[in-house]
Amino acid sequence: MLKNKDTIKKIQIKGLDFKIFKSGIKKNSTDLLLITLPKFSSISGVFTKSNTPSASVIDCKNKINLKNNSIRCLVVNSGNANAFTGIKGIKAVNKITKFLSTLYNCNENEVYSSSTGVIGEELNPSQITYCIKNKRPAFVNSIKEAAKSIMTTDTFPKYTTSKVKYKNFEANVIGIAKGSGMIAPNMGTMLAYIFTDLNISSKVLQKILTNENDRTFNSITVDSDTSTSDTCLLISTNQLKNRKINNFSDKFLNNFKKCISNIMLNLAKQIVIDGEGAKKIIEITVKNAKNVNSAKNIAFSIANSPLVKTAIAGEDANWGRIVMAIGKSYEKIDQNKIKIRFGKHLVAKNGMKYSKYSEKNLTEYLKNKEIKISIDISMGKQKWTVYTCDLTEKYIRINADYRS
Amino acid sequence: MLKNKDTIKKIQIKGLDFKIFKSGIKKNSTDLLLITLPKFSSISGVFTKSNTPSASVIDCKNKINLKNNSIRCLVVNSGNANAFTGIKGIKAVNKITKFLSTLYNCNENEVYSSSTGVIGEELNPSQITYCIKNKRPAFVNSIKEAAKSIMTTDTFPKYTTSKVKYKNFEANVIGIAKGSGMIAPNMGTMLAYIFTDLNISSKVLQKILTNENDRTFNSITVDSDTSTSDTCLLISTNQLKNRKINNFSDKFLNNFKKCISNIMLNLAKQIVIDGEGAKKIIEITVKNAKNVNSAKNIAFSIANSPLVKTAIAGEDANWGRIVMAIGKSYEKIDQNKIKIRFGKHLVAKNGMKYSKYSEKNLTEYLKNKEIKISIDISMGKQKWTVYTCDLTEKYIRINADYRS
Repeated sequence: MLKNKDTIKKIQIKGLDFKIFKSGIKKNSTDLLLITLPKFSSISGVFTKSNTPSASVIDCKNKINLKNNSIRCLVVNSGNANAFTGIKGIKAVNKITKFLSTLYNCNENEVYSSSTGVIGEELNPSQITYCIKNKRPAFVNSIKEAAKSIMTTDTFPKYTTSKVKYKNFEANVIGIAKGSGMIAPNMGTMLAYIFTDLNISSKVLQKILTNENDRTFNSITVDSDTSTSDTCLLISTNQLKNRKINNFSDKFLNNFKKCISNIMLNLAKQIVIDGEGAKKIIEITVKNAKNVNSAKNIAFSIANSPLVKTAIAGEDANWGRIVMAIGKSYEKIDQNKIKIRFGKHLVAKNGMKYSKYSEKNLTEYLKNKEIKISIDISMGKQKWTVYTCDLTEKYIRINADYRS
Repeated sequence: MLKNKDTIKKIQIKGLDFKIFKSGIKKNSTDLLLITLPKFSSISGVFTKSNTPSASVIDCKNKINLKNNSIRCLVVNSGNANAFTGIKGIKAVNKITKFLSTLYNCNENEVYSSSTGVIGEELNPSQITYCIKNKRPAFVNSIKEAAKSIMTTDTFPKYTTSKVKYKNFEANVIGIAKGSGMIAPNMGTMLAYIFTDLNISSKVLQKILTNENDRTFNSITVDSDTSTSDTCLLISTNQLKNRKINNFSDKFLNNFKKCISNIMLNLAKQIVIDGEGAKKIIEITVKNAKNVNSAKNIAFSIANSPLVKTAIAGEDANWGRIVMAIGKSYEKIDQNKIKIRFGKHLVAKNGMKYSKYSEKNLTEYLKNKEIKISIDISMGKQKWTVYTCDLTEKYIRINADYRS
């Protein structure tokens, strides 16, 4: 459902160019992605809210905030996050940026970068500039290989594509992402890059990205940990012949907004499915809450509970842990009004176990790969959905010895 | 260091009486603890802030809040939490309370109870009243066996004792506790009962308990999950011949306050050491923070990070994850001012890896059973310490199939 590999070849965005390298930062796989775009391509971005952001995140944020921002190229490396590397980290980004601005004859402010990998290790900028200057790309213009080159503990590359109508024009959209652990984003998330050819201003793109981010990338969690490098960029080559879109409220834009939202949710779900060690995807919906924040807090309290996630990993019908997780959200609720459903199975009602509760049915349901939990709070009308995965012994094995 | 088993026999509190039963709630171990006290014993308590509290917690809270509260007996069962059991749960508590008030010829408000175990399962009150009425205790007046009877996934019973001077009198203090998973309390915590014979009002006891709770039981976390049943009671038989203490500011009371604080911290650390699947205890101190809340939030952000805890389980010197966890606390900090120490080893300074950092030394240090992490934020003068444990595959194994 989530991997549109069949349709991937049909989509092309003129002027969008991928080069994929083995720079040597990682031992024996592609680890460097260089993306070039036509002059004056539009750009928008959302980033981690972490107070220990990486050098690239600091640099990208500054450039996005400039008036008349635009992008000519983007370089992404895996294997090193260039985070908590102080002044040396900033200098490394500047050196790479300067090199690329000379190479592509553009302003330094039109060069963007991301880094993902180990925190606290120095990034050697020469390794990247040398590679781009002298090495031949391992692959060219392959979305799949581009997605592969930014993987860390991911087990599969994450990408998706779509076409969408704007008036009489047909715009193309391509999204790639990476992420598997350290996933509980706040504002931006992991690495995700979405490209289109719709002729649209950076300002309008930014508004669309910010709006859609909350119910997509900001509604997933693997382990409640938030990265220092979370970045999501929405970029347009502006090559489609439509008249430049400068108005967010343009009613013809609704399809495009919906399309971007779907692409973001699709990539977000791919990340959760590939959560470190995960065997199951869990969709948690809290409905009839007093307000949106309350629904969101309760949903995340459940989604981040190790005890809920281990019970689901063990296919153990220990639904009482959902009650515990609702309780520790400290949201104002009346426990006698809560209804809890797993799929279609009502398990709790009126502040206690449902009279027709069947442990056998629930245990059977828990064998599914996709678990849907729905909590009716009966306090109002707002709802929120959060996506997460189960917590298995493999998560521990992956992370107890990540660097070796 | 934490288990004062050698001194345990020397401490006796006149009129404090334990009876330990096998009621049958759990298959083949002691699961019921009945504690009786002299008439008009003083009582104070702190409880879970969960919004889905158990029936016993609701009942205890109501009774503690009465004017002229006092305690005559306390009954604790393991194997069933009597939480999310609705009106039936409340009725079960009432039935047990009524039975004991008749048995001990006291007011129902002088009977307290706690339950720990599975959430959402009905508790049969007759099983408890029948047992007390008809069965012979398996043990009498054994602190160790009392602590054993309230265990769930605990691997050892938790208790400690002390003597403390008040003017010319010597007061005795005994504490027992249980807890191993679902440990990230807020206000009260797990089950902990502390007894003394100092002649002191409930009001003063309550103030001492509330004051000391924040830096002891509220500063530990095993898995960030908070129980529906967390309860800590501080009780006095008032049998010591000192004149009744009604003034919290009584300067002769300082030793006693310090003693209670030590007992609470000792029990809290025993709980963390016995954290489900834990092999290591981790002490995290955040110092020179702008204010106490900021220090506390950063310390808990580190202590609750699965990625920090798995790295320590794997003895992997991946200190960058500490940086990540500081960042995701969203506290206002300057990452260029942070210093990070493991024991005496400085690993980060000036926003980057310390120039003399030795991975070999850090890896060696991580082999210890007790890991001390210190973060200097350089933003002010406040500090906070939080205690936690590592996160191992065993935690998953224990919790993926807790009920079978």
